[in-house]
Amino acid sequence: MATKEQIAAFMASDFPQSKIVIDEVGQMSARVRHHIGHDELRPGGTVSGPVMMATADCALYVAILGEIGIVPLAVTTSLNINFLRKPSAEQDIVAVCRIFKRGRSLIVGDVMLYSDGSDDPVAHAVGTYAIPPGSVA
Amino acid sequence: MATKEQIAAFMASDFPQSKIVIDEVGQMSARVRHHIGHDELRPGGTVSGPVMMATADCALYVAILGEIGIVPLAVTTSLNINFLRKPSAEQDIVAVCRIFKRGRSLIVGDVMLYSDGSDDPVAHAVGTYAIPPGSVA
Amino acid sequence: MATKEQIAAFMASDFPQSKIVIDEVGQMSARVRHHIGHDELRPGGTVSGPVMMATADCALYVAILGEIGIVPLAVTTSLNINFLRKPSAEQDIVAVCRIFKRGRSLIVGDVMLYSDGSDDPVAHAVGTYAIPPGSVA
Amino acid sequence: MATKEQIAAFMASDFPQSKIVIDEVGQMSARVRHHIGHDELRPGGTVSGPVMMATADCALYVAILGEIGIVPLAVTTSLNINFLRKPSAEQDIVAVCRIFKRGRSLIVGDVMLYSDGSDDPVAHAVGTYAIPPGSVA
Repeated sequence: MATKEQIAAFMASDFPQSKIVIDEVGQMSARVRHHIGHDELRPGGTVSGPVMMATADCALYVAILGEIGIVPLAVTTSLNINFLRKPSAEQDIVAVCRIFKRGRSLIVGDVMLYSDGSDDPVAHAVGTYAIPPGSVA
Repeated sequence: MATKEQIAAFMASDFPQSKIVIDEVGQMSARVRHHIGHDELRPGGTVSGPVMMATADCALYVAILGEIGIVPLAVTTSLNINFLRKPSAEQDIVAVCRIFKRGRSLIVGDVMLYSDGSDDPVAHAVGTYAIPPGSVA
Repeated sequence: MATKEQIAAFMASDFPQSKIVIDEVGQMSARVRHHIGHDELRPGGTVSGPVMMATADCALYVAILGEIGIVPLAVTTSLNINFLRKPSAEQDIVAVCRIFKRGRSLIVGDVMLYSDGSDDPVAHAVGTYAIPPGSVA
Repeated sequence: MATKEQIAAFMASDFPQSKIVIDEVGQMSARVRHHIGHDELRPGGTVSGPVMMATADCALYVAILGEIGIVPLAVTTSLNINFLRKPSAEQDIVAVCRIFKRGRSLIVGDVMLYSDGSDDPVAHAVGTYAIPPGSVA
C-alpha cells in the first residue's frame, strides 16, 4: 500500500503535466480535486467534459495505488461517465472514489464528481483498471 | 450543417487550448487527430487515457456540428470508452466517428481510435450529446 | 409518487412475465429481488448475465416510479453494467438502486447487485431513463 | 474455432431456455435473432430492454465461440447499451456483432441491433468477455 504522500510524489515525478491534487487516500477509496481556471472551461461557461473524465480517471488511479502500492503500469481498460448537472465555473472539481472489487488482474470502482461546496453530483463515472501480472501480492 | 473550415474556425476561437486537428467532416461522420508529444504520454511510454477520451469526445462533437451546424452548447451527456491496445508513443491518435442516431434532443455515435498508420484500433468509445431545445430544425 | 403496493400492482398487470419482487421503495431509491432457479443459471453453475441486467433495469424503473408516479412509458435509454464476482446459484439476486439525478426528461441512477446474504457486490450498473414530456410535474 | 452448427448444438443443450437463433457465424463476427412475441413486449407496445440486452450479450458470446471454440465458461465482464429507436413489436430483433479485440484474457466487441427488415438501428451495445486462462491457444 502507498500513502497519500508517496502517491503525490509519484504523480509529481511521473505525471508532471497533471493539475490534480490529492485530498485523501483511504481504504479502498480516495478523494482528489482539479483546480478550474480558464483552460478548463468550454462554451457555456462550464467545465469541459474531458477535464471531468481526466479527474475521474485519476481519482480511481490514486485509490488503486493506495491499495496495491506504486504500480505505475496499472492502466485503465474502460471508463463510463454520465454528466448530471452543469458544474460551477468557479469551484474546483472534487472527485470521490470507492473501489468495488479488487481482483488480481482487474480493479473496478466508481467516482462521484462535485463542484466543491455542493452536495449535488455533477458527474458519475465507473472505471476498470488492469493490473500487470505479478504486481500485486 | 457546418463545413470542416467553419468547425475548425469555431474550435480555434472557442477551444483555443485544444490540440486536435480536423481531418474530415462527412455525412454523419468525422475524422480528427491529436498530435502525441511528451505531454500526452504516461508511464509505460504510451498515450495517456485522458488524451484518448478527449480525442473521442471531440470527434463526436465535430461530427455533430457537421450535422446540425455550429451549436456550441451541445454537451456530452455520457461517454463509454474501452481501451483495446497500447497506442504508439510516436504516432498521432486518429479518431473516426460515425453517428448512429440524430434525434431532436439526443445524438448518439461511436468513435474508433487508432495510432496513425495502423488498422488495429487502440480504443473504442460510444457517446451521447444533448442538443439545446430549438437549436436543430 | 407511487407506493410499493401501487408499483407492485402495476408490475403484475403490465409486466406479468417478470419474476421480480419489490422489497422496498424509498426516497430516490428502491430494493428489488429476483428468485434464482434453474431457468436463471448458465454453465458454470452461476446466474446468467441477462438475469442480472434485467434485475438492475427493473430496480431503476421501480425507484423512478416511486419518485414520479406510475409513468409506464418511462424507458431505458442506456445501461452500463460491470460484473464483479460470481453470484451464488442458490440465493436471490438483490438489487439496491439510488437515483443520482431526477431531471425533467432524464433520470440517472445506479444499482448494486448482491447474492442475498452477502455484502460483496456481484455486479454494478448505471442506467438512464427518459421520461415522456409532460409526465412529471 | 466452432461452426454455426456446433454453437447451435451447444446453446440448445446448455442454454435450453434461450429463444435466440443463430443466423450466421463469421470471422470475428456473428448475427443472431430473437423472435418477438407477447412475452418480449412492454407497455408502449415495444420490445422490452432486457430482451435486447440478452440478445446483444448472446450475439457477442456466439461470435466469441466462433473464434475460440466451445468455451462455456467465457463470461461477460461488462456490457454497455444505448437504446436508439423504438423497435417494432412485430419483427424479430436481429443483432450483428463484430469483435474489436481478441486478447488472451479479454475479448471486446460491439453489437448493432435492428428490427428485422429495417436499416435503422434500435440499439447499440459494447461488451467485454473474460476467457478462462489456458482455454485459448
